[in-house]
Amino acid sequence: MEKAKKQLKLGVFLAGTGHHVASWRHPQAQPDRSLDFAYFQQLAQTAERGKLDMLFLADSLSIAPDSHPNVLTRFEPFTLLAALAVVTSKIGLAATATTTYSEPFHIARQFASLDHLSGGRAGWNVVTCSVESTALNFSQEAHPEHSLRYKRAEEFVEVVKGLWDSWEEDAFVRDKASGVYFDPHKWHELHHKGEFFSVRGPLDTARSPQGQPVIIQAGSSQTGQHLAARTAEVVFTVQNNLSGAQAFYKSIKDKAAMYGRSPDEISIMPGIFPIIGETEAEAKEKFEELQDCILPSVGLGILSFFLGGFDLSPYPLDGPLPDLELLATNAEQTRFQMIKDMAKQENMTIRQLYKSFASSRGHHIFVGTPVQLADIMEEWAAQGGADGFNLMPPLLPEGLDLFVEQVVPILQERGSFRTEYTGSTLRDHLGLPKPVNRYAKQMTRG
Amino acid sequence: MEKAKKQLKLGVFLAGTGHHVASWRHPQAQPDRSLDFAYFQQLAQTAERGKLDMLFLADSLSIAPDSHPNVLTRFEPFTLLAALAVVTSKIGLAATATTTYSEPFHIARQFASLDHLSGGRAGWNVVTCSVESTALNFSQEAHPEHSLRYKRAEEFVEVVKGLWDSWEEDAFVRDKASGVYFDPHKWHELHHKGEFFSVRGPLDTARSPQGQPVIIQAGSSQTGQHLAARTAEVVFTVQNNLSGAQAFYKSIKDKAAMYGRSPDEISIMPGIFPIIGETEAEAKEKFEELQDCILPSVGLGILSFFLGGFDLSPYPLDGPLPDLELLATNAEQTRFQMIKDMAKQENMTIRQLYKSFASSRGHHIFVGTPVQLADIMEEWAAQGGADGFNLMPPLLPEGLDLFVEQVVPILQERGSFRTEYTGSTLRDHLGLPKPVNRYAKQMTRG
Repeated sequence: MEKAKKQLKLGVFLAGTGHHVASWRHPQAQPDRSLDFAYFQQLAQTAERGKLDMLFLADSLSIAPDSHPNVLTRFEPFTLLAALAVVTSKIGLAATATTTYSEPFHIARQFASLDHLSGGRAGWNVVTCSVESTALNFSQEAHPEHSLRYKRAEEFVEVVKGLWDSWEEDAFVRDKASGVYFDPHKWHELHHKGEFFSVRGPLDTARSPQGQPVIIQAGSSQTGQHLAARTAEVVFTVQNNLSGAQAFYKSIKDKAAMYGRSPDEISIMPGIFPIIGETEAEAKEKFEELQDCILPSVGLGILSFFLGGFDLSPYPLDGPLPDLELLATNAEQTRFQMIKDMAKQENMTIRQLYKSFASSRGHHIFVGTPVQLADIMEEWAAQGGADGFNLMPPLLPEGLDLFVEQVVPILQERGSFRTEYTGSTLRDHLGLPKPVNRYAKQMTRG
Repeated sequence: MEKAKKQLKLGVFLAGTGHHVASWRHPQAQPDRSLDFAYFQQLAQTAERGKLDMLFLADSLSIAPDSHPNVLTRFEPFTLLAALAVVTSKIGLAATATTTYSEPFHIARQFASLDHLSGGRAGWNVVTCSVESTALNFSQEAHPEHSLRYKRAEEFVEVVKGLWDSWEEDAFVRDKASGVYFDPHKWHELHHKGEFFSVRGPLDTARSPQGQPVIIQAGSSQTGQHLAARTAEVVFTVQNNLSGAQAFYKSIKDKAAMYGRSPDEISIMPGIFPIIGETEAEAKEKFEELQDCILPSVGLGILSFFLGGFDLSPYPLDGPLPDLELLATNAEQTRFQMIKDMAKQENMTIRQLYKSFASSRGHHIFVGTPVQLADIMEEWAAQGGADGFNLMPPLLPEGLDLFVEQVVPILQERGSFRTEYTGSTLRDHLGLPKPVNRYAKQMTRG
């Protein structure tokens, strides 16, 4: 008997008009619907029709005039996901929330509440936030440096997970006759006291359907990888080729083993930026149409941002990237190195670099047919580069529609993707067990 | 021609099994639905069927074993309101959010997002939070004292309102041809620098449908009244008789005039706790049935809480209240005095006090027929005691169903309540103008 084929995990990263840097200028784009719930409802329902594991919303807390239009004006993730919970019934609902400018009590509560609202579909993408100017919106003099942010993140996650265990599964007895509402032995105060936080608890929310919402992480630095290996259940990552993806995949799974975890407890889902055409030529044309929408000033701005703010405007667009060192250790380290490597290895001009990098911000760009995309996804999964993908359609809703209508059926036919949801929680979709409450585990009472 | 009758403003305060302290023990109560979205959907849709101005969710961030069961395990307000926005279309959606343990950027964003999601129906009940133990969930050594909390609240509201003006109405031009996404003259950084906050802005959300979500306040202390008179558009208040309500009403409206505001810009909505029966006798019976559900330990606990934690257990239940002074200035001052006054003026025993006070926590208890309730509501409105009411049904869903089915039609027939929504935003319902953006007002650019 043939061994059952590895099942891909698939998420879609929803973002306004789509992930291409200039998507909003595309003739089909609907940028005026950035705050139109019906638009997101349609996207979410399409993704659910495609039986995707989850939809994902990123977040940030500071904008600049040159921010991506998707980011300049948009819904706050909790409010949008809660609303989407009502119009979907199976798909996972994940969002970014930062540990640098929030309090664990608020975050624990909002994800627990979302998990209840959605019947167990919440996922939290833990980020430390790389945008320095965020400090200015939160009464801070300066953005904390990288290692401090990660130390805080680690403790933050620990507190949130602790708060999610405040109540044991069957704590609420609600015995009308005796007037006993809950079993006091199943009420647990956390009494966390750490370097950054001191939180008593308990949370004012019964244990949620998933036990604990799913933890997602996306930091790719060494510190970020260790945090992910210890605590994440899904890892988003930026990988632009298979060999890099394999190295990252192995690194995370090895580290997870070091922390005593099974490799199956972490799904690694690189971003993928698919331009799908009926033929390769059509896909290339579509890509060019998007690329032509990039204004040079926008391309340069994005490249500068990921190069730690280095001003490239004095350099000729068709000349090479100047020699750069990462000055601010607070900048996003992974992509800084990626850009430098691309410039060197492929001998690219600044214009080529921004076109190549800015369009997808470093995520793997696929340009081809549905069959080719299915091939690549299966190849990465078979070759130890990915457990699945976080789709970043360059243009929405078109990119998601095409994926669901043309790629999903191929994967389904090949047996590498579900044809129906077999469970109803995000943990079910990802094959993750429901965590046992830490207090129930100990079998200690009170 | 007869002068048009004053229109009542009506909100419903949704809370689990209802506002009676022992509601969950009532045979009809459904305490196991505290985290069941369908339950709240039904309540919200009933309220909308009754053409109510808004529904309201309270909030707190710390629970104790003797907290009201409605509070022990519940939805977080933003996630619940966002979900309710999808299943309703007209009713206002208001929630409490504290200024003591939040950041203005988060709060501004979440209410702006809710306002977009709901098409202009968001309202924010600004509270400073009176539960001292909240500090322990937010890494604080102690709960800030009353006056400090109010100073922070004042600045907090100022920052939030500033952030809501980040973008002018028509800031997003989205000109695909030129690549101009927004008019830079209509982007406004707040650059707030105050005693408590320093916030640059702008918010990452276009100006919301109401321009600014509606501001609600409930503080009744002198400091609270001044803050309300200056900034609130709706005031919730605890008033247990008409003369007290009249004094409060006059005090707020006079103070508002002092701050240069028209009295019509503030709606004063006392809480009302209606037990409705077909006859007075039936209503009384219903009330007794609820009162009989109160365990003495629970009644005493609530009384103690509002008496600043004073332990009443050594005193005989059927004896008088001992002489007390308000020790902790952090305690809720208004209700402390109310209880002392009730005990003295009506010569009540501890048991009578807790039964009378604990059941509604000081809100006006009405026991009678639909016609009598309509009479009282109209009387308070006509006599300068209220612009409307915040309904606190003792038992849900029954109390709301009865109000909508039996009291609303009477008010409608008498011309004191709308028969149809005439607008679609909470501001429309309340007769409040849409605020002009401060920058558009100044006619300065950039």
